[in-house]
Amino acid sequence: MNLRKIGEFGFIEQLSQLLRPGNDVVKGIGDDAAVLPRDKSTYALFTCDALVEGIHFTLNMPAHLIGRKAMAVNLSDIASMGGIPQHAVVTLGVKPTLPLRFYQKLYQGLQEVASLFGVTVVGGDTVSSPKALFVDVALTGWVEKKHCTLRQGAQRGDALVVSGSLGGSLAGKHLQFTPRIKEARALVKHFSVHAMIDLSDGLAGDLGHILKQSHVGARIFLNRIPIARSVTAKGFLPRLRQALCDGEDYELLFALPAKQAASAQAFFARHKGFPCLRVVGEVIRASQGLRYVFPDGKEKKWDLHGYQHF
Amino acid sequence: MNLRKIGEFGFIEQLSQLLRPGNDVVKGIGDDAAVLPRDKSTYALFTCDALVEGIHFTLNMPAHLIGRKAMAVNLSDIASMGGIPQHAVVTLGVKPTLPLRFYQKLYQGLQEVASLFGVTVVGGDTVSSPKALFVDVALTGWVEKKHCTLRQGAQRGDALVVSGSLGGSLAGKHLQFTPRIKEARALVKHFSVHAMIDLSDGLAGDLGHILKQSHVGARIFLNRIPIARSVTAKGFLPRLRQALCDGEDYELLFALPAKQAASAQAFFARHKGFPCLRVVGEVIRASQGLRYVFPDGKEKKWDLHGYQHF
Repeated sequence: MNLRKIGEFGFIEQLSQLLRPGNDVVKGIGDDAAVLPRDKSTYALFTCDALVEGIHFTLNMPAHLIGRKAMAVNLSDIASMGGIPQHAVVTLGVKPTLPLRFYQKLYQGLQEVASLFGVTVVGGDTVSSPKALFVDVALTGWVEKKHCTLRQGAQRGDALVVSGSLGGSLAGKHLQFTPRIKEARALVKHFSVHAMIDLSDGLAGDLGHILKQSHVGARIFLNRIPIARSVTAKGFLPRLRQALCDGEDYELLFALPAKQAASAQAFFARHKGFPCLRVVGEVIRASQGLRYVFPDGKEKKWDLHGYQHF
Repeated sequence: MNLRKIGEFGFIEQLSQLLRPGNDVVKGIGDDAAVLPRDKSTYALFTCDALVEGIHFTLNMPAHLIGRKAMAVNLSDIASMGGIPQHAVVTLGVKPTLPLRFYQKLYQGLQEVASLFGVTVVGGDTVSSPKALFVDVALTGWVEKKHCTLRQGAQRGDALVVSGSLGGSLAGKHLQFTPRIKEARALVKHFSVHAMIDLSDGLAGDLGHILKQSHVGARIFLNRIPIARSVTAKGFLPRLRQALCDGEDYELLFALPAKQAASAQAFFARHKGFPCLRVVGEVIRASQGLRYVFPDGKEKKWDLHGYQHF
C-alpha cells in the first residue's frame, strides 16, 4: 500500500487502529490535543508537532523564526482546545555541520514565544540528524472541564466563525503568527463555543474535521471569507481557493450558537490586539454535506482540498 | 563554534542557558525526566527521546523493533526517576517511499511495549521526512514525592550498584532491552536509593552525570563490572572498555547506603525475571574524582568516554 495513495489522514487512521485506547483517556488521537484526567474541575492537555527541514522550513529562513514556529504551532493546538499551555520538551534533530550560533538563535526564538504564553521548556533530547534538521515540541497544558472544546460538538444552526484572515501564509505569516491562546480563552470563558480547531491545513481541509467529528454539514458563504492581503492570486475564485487551501493560517475556526456570534464579534472588536471575527457559514444537517454559497447566490459543492502532508 | 568541538553535553549546556527556568518546575533540564508539580504527594514526570534513521537504527532492522525501542528508551527514562509511565505522544517523521506495512509494524512494536507497562499513546504528529525516518516519543509519568530519584543525591559511602550486564548492546540488546520500570519501582519502594540514572551512553559516561550532579567522586572496582556475553573484544581491558563505553545498555546505575546493598541484591535474586545487581563501586569525596581499581589492586584514573552523539 502506497502512502501517497491513502494520504495523510488515511495513514493516521490506519496507524491509530493499532493503538489501544486507554481507559483513563477523555479524548485521544483525533483532536488538536489529547484530553486527560487531571483533577475534579480540570483536564490535562498533551500534544506534539514537529517541523522538518525542506518540508516546513529551509535553512535560508532566520533560525529564531524556525524556533519560534516550532513552539507556536503547539501553542496553537492548545489554544484550539480552549486551554492554557504549561510545559514543553523539545527534541532537536541536529545537523552537526551547522554552527552553534544557528541553534542558539533557534532556541532564542522558541523561548521567546514560550515566555509570552507562560510556557517553560523543562527538558528535551538532542540527536544527530545529518540529513535534515528537525525540531519536535511536545507540550502539556490544562483546561477547565467546562471550557474544554473539541472538534466534535458543533450543532445544527450554529454559526461558523473564523478569526483573522486566511491564505498567503507562506509570504511570512507562517513563521510569525500569533498563537490564538488569549483569543481562545476569551471565547471559551464568555461564549458557548461548541467546537473549535486551529487552521493549519486550510479551512477547506480543517472544517472537514469539525464536520466529521460533530456529524454535521456546513454552508459556507464564499463572499464572507476574510482573504489575507498576502494572497497573490488574481480573480475572485483563485483568491478564494488560496484563502481556503493554502494552510498554515493558525487562526481559529469555531462553532457557536448563531445568536452569540454578533456579541463575540463585538467583544473581539473591543479587545486591543485581537483579530476580527468573521461569520463565514452555518452548521447544517450531516446529510447536506459541505456546501459553498457562491457570490451569485448559487449553492453547490466545490472540490477543494486542504494541504496534504504526503 | 563547531558542534563536534564542544560535544553533545557542551551543546546542551549552551542551549540550556538560553531557556528560562520556570518557578513551577521541581527539576528541569539535566535529569532523565523533568519533575513537575502534580498533587500533594506526587510529582509529574515528562521526558522525550528520538530515534533517527542512520544514527540509532537502519531500515534493515525489523520495523517492530524500531518502534519498540522508540518507546522503550523513554520508559527507561521514567524508570530511572523511580516513576510510573502514563501517556505518550508519538511524532513520526515519515519517509513516503516506505510501504504502509513498515509503519504498521513499527506502531505494533511501539504499542506492544507500551501496553506491557500500562502506557497509552494518546496522540501524535505525522510529518513528511523524505531524507531520514525518525520517531520521537514524549512520555509523561508520575512518582510519589518520597520515591522520586534524581541524578543528584548520591552520598559519600554509598554503594554504586548496576543492574544486569554491560556492553555489546549493538549485537541485539539495544533493540530488545527490558525497560527497568518494575526493578526501579521495587528499589525506590524498598530501599533508600539516593541517586539513579539509566545507562544509555555507557557507565563511563553516565556515572559522570551522577558524580557531577551529586558533587561526589567514585571508586569503581573493575573486576566487579558485569561484562555482557555479547562483548566481543579479547583481553580483560578491551572487554572492560567495551562494557563501560558501548552504551545502550538501558540498565540502572544507582547509589544507595552501603549497608542496604546486600539486601537489595537478595531482593532481586528472589524476584523472577529481575536481573542480577552488582556492587561495582563506592561513592567518595568529589576532590578524589573518578578512580578505577584495577585487578592488580592499583587505583588510577582511566580516560574512558561514554558514547558521544556528535
